[in-house]
Amino acid sequence: MSLCSCKQEKKVNEECGVFAITTDGTSGIDVVGESYYALYALQHRGQESCGITVNDDGVFTTRKGVGLVPEVFTAEEMAKMPKGKAAIGHVRYAPKSQIDAVNAQPMVVRHAKGTLSLVTNSALVNGLELRQEMQQQGTFFQTTNDAEVMAYLIARKRLETHSIEDALALALERFEGAYSIVLMSPTKVIAARDPLGFKPLCIGKTKDGYVFASETCALNVVGAEFLRDVKPGEIVEVVNNELIIYRQGKDEHPKGLCVFEYVYTARPDSVIEGASVHVARRRAGELLAKAHPVEADVVIGAPDSGLDAAQGYAQESGIPYGVGLLKNRYIGRTFIQPVQSQRENSVKIKLNPISETIKGKRVVLVDDSVVRGTTSERVVRLLKEAGAKEVHLRITAPPFKYLCYFGTDIGKPEELMANRMPIEDMAAALGADSIGFLSLEDTKKMASGVCKDYCVGCFSGEYPIDVSKANQKDKFEEKLTK
Amino acid sequence: MSLCSCKQEKKVNEECGVFAITTDGTSGIDVVGESYYALYALQHRGQESCGITVNDDGVFTTRKGVGLVPEVFTAEEMAKMPKGKAAIGHVRYAPKSQIDAVNAQPMVVRHAKGTLSLVTNSALVNGLELRQEMQQQGTFFQTTNDAEVMAYLIARKRLETHSIEDALALALERFEGAYSIVLMSPTKVIAARDPLGFKPLCIGKTKDGYVFASETCALNVVGAEFLRDVKPGEIVEVVNNELIIYRQGKDEHPKGLCVFEYVYTARPDSVIEGASVHVARRRAGELLAKAHPVEADVVIGAPDSGLDAAQGYAQESGIPYGVGLLKNRYIGRTFIQPVQSQRENSVKIKLNPISETIKGKRVVLVDDSVVRGTTSERVVRLLKEAGAKEVHLRITAPPFKYLCYFGTDIGKPEELMANRMPIEDMAAALGADSIGFLSLEDTKKMASGVCKDYCVGCFSGEYPIDVSKANQKDKFEEKLTK
Amino acid sequence: MSLCSCKQEKKVNEECGVFAITTDGTSGIDVVGESYYALYALQHRGQESCGITVNDDGVFTTRKGVGLVPEVFTAEEMAKMPKGKAAIGHVRYAPKSQIDAVNAQPMVVRHAKGTLSLVTNSALVNGLELRQEMQQQGTFFQTTNDAEVMAYLIARKRLETHSIEDALALALERFEGAYSIVLMSPTKVIAARDPLGFKPLCIGKTKDGYVFASETCALNVVGAEFLRDVKPGEIVEVVNNELIIYRQGKDEHPKGLCVFEYVYTARPDSVIEGASVHVARRRAGELLAKAHPVEADVVIGAPDSGLDAAQGYAQESGIPYGVGLLKNRYIGRTFIQPVQSQRENSVKIKLNPISETIKGKRVVLVDDSVVRGTTSERVVRLLKEAGAKEVHLRITAPPFKYLCYFGTDIGKPEELMANRMPIEDMAAALGADSIGFLSLEDTKKMASGVCKDYCVGCFSGEYPIDVSKANQKDKFEEKLTK
Amino acid sequence: MSLCSCKQEKKVNEECGVFAITTDGTSGIDVVGESYYALYALQHRGQESCGITVNDDGVFTTRKGVGLVPEVFTAEEMAKMPKGKAAIGHVRYAPKSQIDAVNAQPMVVRHAKGTLSLVTNSALVNGLELRQEMQQQGTFFQTTNDAEVMAYLIARKRLETHSIEDALALALERFEGAYSIVLMSPTKVIAARDPLGFKPLCIGKTKDGYVFASETCALNVVGAEFLRDVKPGEIVEVVNNELIIYRQGKDEHPKGLCVFEYVYTARPDSVIEGASVHVARRRAGELLAKAHPVEADVVIGAPDSGLDAAQGYAQESGIPYGVGLLKNRYIGRTFIQPVQSQRENSVKIKLNPISETIKGKRVVLVDDSVVRGTTSERVVRLLKEAGAKEVHLRITAPPFKYLCYFGTDIGKPEELMANRMPIEDMAAALGADSIGFLSLEDTKKMASGVCKDYCVGCFSGEYPIDVSKANQKDKFEEKLTK
Repeated sequence: MSLCSCKQEKKVNEECGVFAITTDGTSGIDVVGESYYALYALQHRGQESCGITVNDDGVFTTRKGVGLVPEVFTAEEMAKMPKGKAAIGHVRYAPKSQIDAVNAQPMVVRHAKGTLSLVTNSALVNGLELRQEMQQQGTFFQTTNDAEVMAYLIARKRLETHSIEDALALALERFEGAYSIVLMSPTKVIAARDPLGFKPLCIGKTKDGYVFASETCALNVVGAEFLRDVKPGEIVEVVNNELIIYRQGKDEHPKGLCVFEYVYTARPDSVIEGASVHVARRRAGELLAKAHPVEADVVIGAPDSGLDAAQGYAQESGIPYGVGLLKNRYIGRTFIQPVQSQRENSVKIKLNPISETIKGKRVVLVDDSVVRGTTSERVVRLLKEAGAKEVHLRITAPPFKYLCYFGTDIGKPEELMANRMPIEDMAAALGADSIGFLSLEDTKKMASGVCKDYCVGCFSGEYPIDVSKANQKDKFEEKLTK
Repeated sequence: MSLCSCKQEKKVNEECGVFAITTDGTSGIDVVGESYYALYALQHRGQESCGITVNDDGVFTTRKGVGLVPEVFTAEEMAKMPKGKAAIGHVRYAPKSQIDAVNAQPMVVRHAKGTLSLVTNSALVNGLELRQEMQQQGTFFQTTNDAEVMAYLIARKRLETHSIEDALALALERFEGAYSIVLMSPTKVIAARDPLGFKPLCIGKTKDGYVFASETCALNVVGAEFLRDVKPGEIVEVVNNELIIYRQGKDEHPKGLCVFEYVYTARPDSVIEGASVHVARRRAGELLAKAHPVEADVVIGAPDSGLDAAQGYAQESGIPYGVGLLKNRYIGRTFIQPVQSQRENSVKIKLNPISETIKGKRVVLVDDSVVRGTTSERVVRLLKEAGAKEVHLRITAPPFKYLCYFGTDIGKPEELMANRMPIEDMAAALGADSIGFLSLEDTKKMASGVCKDYCVGCFSGEYPIDVSKANQKDKFEEKLTK
Repeated sequence: MSLCSCKQEKKVNEECGVFAITTDGTSGIDVVGESYYALYALQHRGQESCGITVNDDGVFTTRKGVGLVPEVFTAEEMAKMPKGKAAIGHVRYAPKSQIDAVNAQPMVVRHAKGTLSLVTNSALVNGLELRQEMQQQGTFFQTTNDAEVMAYLIARKRLETHSIEDALALALERFEGAYSIVLMSPTKVIAARDPLGFKPLCIGKTKDGYVFASETCALNVVGAEFLRDVKPGEIVEVVNNELIIYRQGKDEHPKGLCVFEYVYTARPDSVIEGASVHVARRRAGELLAKAHPVEADVVIGAPDSGLDAAQGYAQESGIPYGVGLLKNRYIGRTFIQPVQSQRENSVKIKLNPISETIKGKRVVLVDDSVVRGTTSERVVRLLKEAGAKEVHLRITAPPFKYLCYFGTDIGKPEELMANRMPIEDMAAALGADSIGFLSLEDTKKMASGVCKDYCVGCFSGEYPIDVSKANQKDKFEEKLTK
Repeated sequence: MSLCSCKQEKKVNEECGVFAITTDGTSGIDVVGESYYALYALQHRGQESCGITVNDDGVFTTRKGVGLVPEVFTAEEMAKMPKGKAAIGHVRYAPKSQIDAVNAQPMVVRHAKGTLSLVTNSALVNGLELRQEMQQQGTFFQTTNDAEVMAYLIARKRLETHSIEDALALALERFEGAYSIVLMSPTKVIAARDPLGFKPLCIGKTKDGYVFASETCALNVVGAEFLRDVKPGEIVEVVNNELIIYRQGKDEHPKGLCVFEYVYTARPDSVIEGASVHVARRRAGELLAKAHPVEADVVIGAPDSGLDAAQGYAQESGIPYGVGLLKNRYIGRTFIQPVQSQRENSVKIKLNPISETIKGKRVVLVDDSVVRGTTSERVVRLLKEAGAKEVHLRITAPPFKYLCYFGTDIGKPEELMANRMPIEDMAAALGADSIGFLSLEDTKKMASGVCKDYCVGCFSGEYPIDVSKANQKDKFEEKLTK
């Protein structure tokens, strides 16, 4: 349930979307304009800040700022951007404390051999280690972001090598963690994905050039044809508007893709690793129905991300699907609770039950997650007040129990409801009549098909790479500022 | 399909939402704060301007302006509003040419016997006649709005009578057309509905007072219990925080309710005249399935208003329901097309097909209307490009052929596709494989239950009241300004 | 001293500036654009709201709103305004409680015979009487403004007469008080001034049309040549782009011009009734020097309005003129005291002493007024802290003791320092070593030349017209809203 | 004449103001709030961007952005800033192409040994050299600003030394050019000035701490007492809230202070190197009167910076001082010329002649500079059109002929009028009857007293340090971005 604009409720947040586009100039494509539309399509991956670098014959112009895409790129600002034959762009999610223009991407680095601009969806477990190592070698940082670490290490390698690709390849060897990167040099645009493929990244083809994007929904909006995903560990580049594989990926499909991309993060109309997000969510619902059947009268979804899964649950169970909760579609960044009231049910402003669907019914409510439990508890109460006889919560993922080291902000373990009590107590605590989570095994099955494995560390505590270095990260900020 | 923010595409628009709340002060209800939430819930009925008048022991303070509720009522502005025991509020839809603060409601009138504040969702066929008549008698107008005509006529009658209720009753005798009115005097809040009940209006009960609202979704958000709809022709008032029926309504249920409230205007979680909007839409889908069956593989809805009906079509036909089109949830008033491009498919920015649902399939697309045809044609093309083998359009209302005189802005008859060609040619013109509209008879059945009849003038050309006076309206503006 | 943006300090405020322009179209003058520039030049007369009505071949388009001229008339809004051959405009000062778009001018009235748009700088002593009389006759008001009363009475007279000029003339007979009016009908622009000429109003000639404006500084900015002032009681009009005297003024020069126009309100580069404001202020300084000589080392002015007078004082007294106080030129509407501190000397943010001018010196400080005394007391302390041995206050007007009924907001009598203590005690109370006010006689001499008499009611309590009716005005608002 | 908001007219611009404040916490001083007021007072030194870093017990929080101080530091933003015991702040002037948040200061650097935050008013002749040298050593840059070069070199030296002061001292040895720096480490605030003292920097004392500021006007606004200027080459620091001289300055007074600080840049109420800016400007007028006497009737100044000098000219010459030009005090960043007109005299919107002062008179117009000549020519014409018989231009500085390498943006030499023609032709070209510039010798005398020498390179072409390295600077941007 995407109540991300509700400041009081902690929700899962995913970090960042990336985009790049090239043209040979023959079809008159406006690379800045298309980047605007693409970032608009990727807005759900990050609402805090955004930016675009355009490459006009080797001269880079960057505009970035805090706000949604149409807020930062007003008509006036768009008019100031030069034309060019390549551009990269970024939308960024950030915890509230880090919402600042200085953290916005693209990250532009001016080094001894030129300039590079980088956008990345990343989280490094050895970010602090690399930062400290580079600091010892005399590199200075303006932010506490991994993106700056990555850009500088690439730039550093650039000084020791003959090409930006070589530099990138060398730098990647040092990055431990999750990253999907797009890099622009004065003559090239390069995309790379970590060896486990934690974050999605795909390639598209326009009439006269190429596109890289975090999700396929950004290809659609610019009229690009989907070619394929960037493979885990692969480095591909566009040089002279030709697509070249610089370094082969090791596997056809990632072993570490964040399964939460399917559960919540990605847009349902995107296709990741051959699996439709929408279909994966329906599948999750079907699997839940098999694993946690219940006698009920109606299956409803928590908008927006629970809707697809609810349809799957309904179909598999034979219980009718219904629309039981309506979300106010004006809820957005402009909503500010203007009165400091004790409104216990602030959730009512965002969600309203449709009693005809619910009244006197035994309701299955399909949602994507239980984090601290506050929101879930309120939604259950809302349904009961609207006349639901029973409410059976079905969650399209296993319980959150462990920290994510790869960029998904699910909060501290001690805040997570699944850590505060046994699962069998959760239903009662939430006021629900039963609760069922998708099992780890089923979670991996939701995005069927070609992708064989996923990162499910936040559920299992078993991460696809060693995260021990990341444990120092918590004291990171304080150390740096003393 | 609610592409209302898309400036290029003409869409149906409904005018206005009204709200009022009273309290006896015992439970600490903040009438301005609750009005804010209620208008937020009614925002879909009008996004152009909004306003609130609060009554603080007989002293009225009004704040109104151009913009969405949270834009006009910022935290700073909210803090400036006094407390009070009654408030009325309004959200207004307006054609672009009339977006101006002077047209915003509440309309405050200071007359010889005091002050009144009025909000209304109305359209009078004799608005021009009344205006001219009052002008002859020396009344002056600042706007070209019917709301001003209504407020002034009520005020005029107030001068001749001993109470605001009597004044309202006398004024209502002169109003020919559609109106749901809420009026506040220093000591009373009064609600009235036209004899045919064109526009919805309902009554709610809070812990210590009453609420009037255009839709029940506004009751829910302020925690009010639904009592009943205001009856057609009825005048009810809250005096000393008691609910009093001043004038009995003639019928239990309206004969002229705009059926488009169920099709498009109202929020699905609202209940109008005992019929759930959500259920009515599902029903429309079922009726369509019976009347226009087709062999197909999947039924999809055009978001947002086509979704419920698609589920109904699917259930009735046995064809699986699918999610085939995704709407970018960041589309809103802030979206400005920053580049003046020849993007034929600007619809792509707002809607994206989910090809897994569509590819190779025979698709039934359920939508709420075909106006000029431009949008529908583009959506059909989008689906075909995404691989749909066939696209069968099913529309949850009859074809628009006639002007609406009661406040729904569907454009001029000559712009309407159903007027430019026979219905049997429309499928081909839109690129669809077949098209089916809900029949007039079925339209009346969609909101089953207690309400026996509706206004379907825009479909049939037969209006529940004489509209001949309204035909002069077109030349209205010019005449007034010469 | 124009600390008008300083919210804590009560300062004198004058209400409104008016403007009109006509063209025959031959020289390509953009009447909306020129109105923008003119209102910009008149901005000092009102910062709360502004507006323009343009007449495009009989069709009126009005844009008005809360804010400074460039805030309301952004490039985007300007682009939406049609071209035309006449326009009128307004800038409005308003007490904080009345800052609302509904009060902005031009006031547009649509009556039985057409439309009129009116801008006015006015204050009627019988405003309430007229309002009540009209209310009894069935006229309704949306605001509590005299402008609405005036517009409606003119419109009412229009219904009884054959021309807008006749209507205006009849209406003027009923207006008791101060008014400079500019009125636009579909074919005419008419200017009128009250018989005593309280408020300035002048006529200019452009290459192909005419201009009316509150001050000559607005003529200069649009490149118009000054023709003459509108005479008291005169009605002049532009018809078919010809200037016609509809009704002769009674006198050559006004008997009731507000002398505070010269002291504070008008821009120094304006010429009113043949007297330069700048020269008048210098003269006031000279007269002060004669009346209140003092042994001192330097004469300084309180910026901005005290500067000219200080030069006059210096020249007459032979004491050197110096710049002793500097005003932060970024002080404006955007300044918000961001910290709720106990900063006693908030005046420091706006004014800074130049110690080289002051230190060890006996200083004559020339200022325009003492209202409540708070600001004056702080400025004196500022100078003393900067090393002034003595501070001798010289005020370019008599003490404020009485209410102004004609539009200048000097506060309630009980707040005025000159009412709370004898003048001989004021110096000590302000921390000054002496204080001297311009005498009533000298005040009338400051704007030498042709104008023989002025309104000095706020100083003497003797008003040029009977103000007894106005005394009910204080309870006006409450009465209306009950 | 400070027409800095007039986009069409090229005017001289100076770069940046710096500020710092410390407290021991005893008197409850709010360091962020005081920084706000101080930056507000320094706003004239830079209107493009601004920022503040606050040090809360070693943790740095930085807020910076594009806009005026009250635009960037809204009440909402101020509320987010933590309290602390030290803060530094900056206002920045920037050429239009570089207005971007990434260039705003303070510049925060996170290095191996901690964090530093730096604000600087600087221009290095060897900025490019240092940048390239550091790039070769592996330092990466995000901007093309010298401030980043300086911050990184200090940080680099910090790695090689045991204290931030040692690091700063070592870094300063490499900086060739103009700089006034304030640096904050978690425990110290340090101020330094280049050996020639190009830019002003002073020290103040509050009740319980210290202040550094570009100008004394910022001391006044925070209630700090002026202690002394930072000496050229000096490094002073505040440690444990004690003021310590870390490195003695070489001279008592600078040899390279930019004389244009007195002519135009600084606020008249500031005192630089013991000389009041206001007094210096009067003095310049006196010297001009001696050097370029003329028979005339009135001396007027071009607002704002010419006013003081005009008074000096008047006093010395015996010709009466008059106010001949009035500046619209609403001219600011919000002013946008809304109509693309061919208004030749756009200067009229900003300046209006007071004809009473001018008409039929022989006028001496005192202004601060002639750059391209466009503005001066228009002002002369304005005066002649207002009736001036003669206009004698007197400029309070020598003609601009050479590039400034130290931060003052006077444009390219080929654009400068004094380079396009002999001085004796300039009067005719500007429409003036005579022209007189302050001689180089007199320029040095204007700020009499303790300061013996100045930088007058822009007038003489002889710079106090070798600027040959700076000549490569023009091709700087292109090189970096290829």
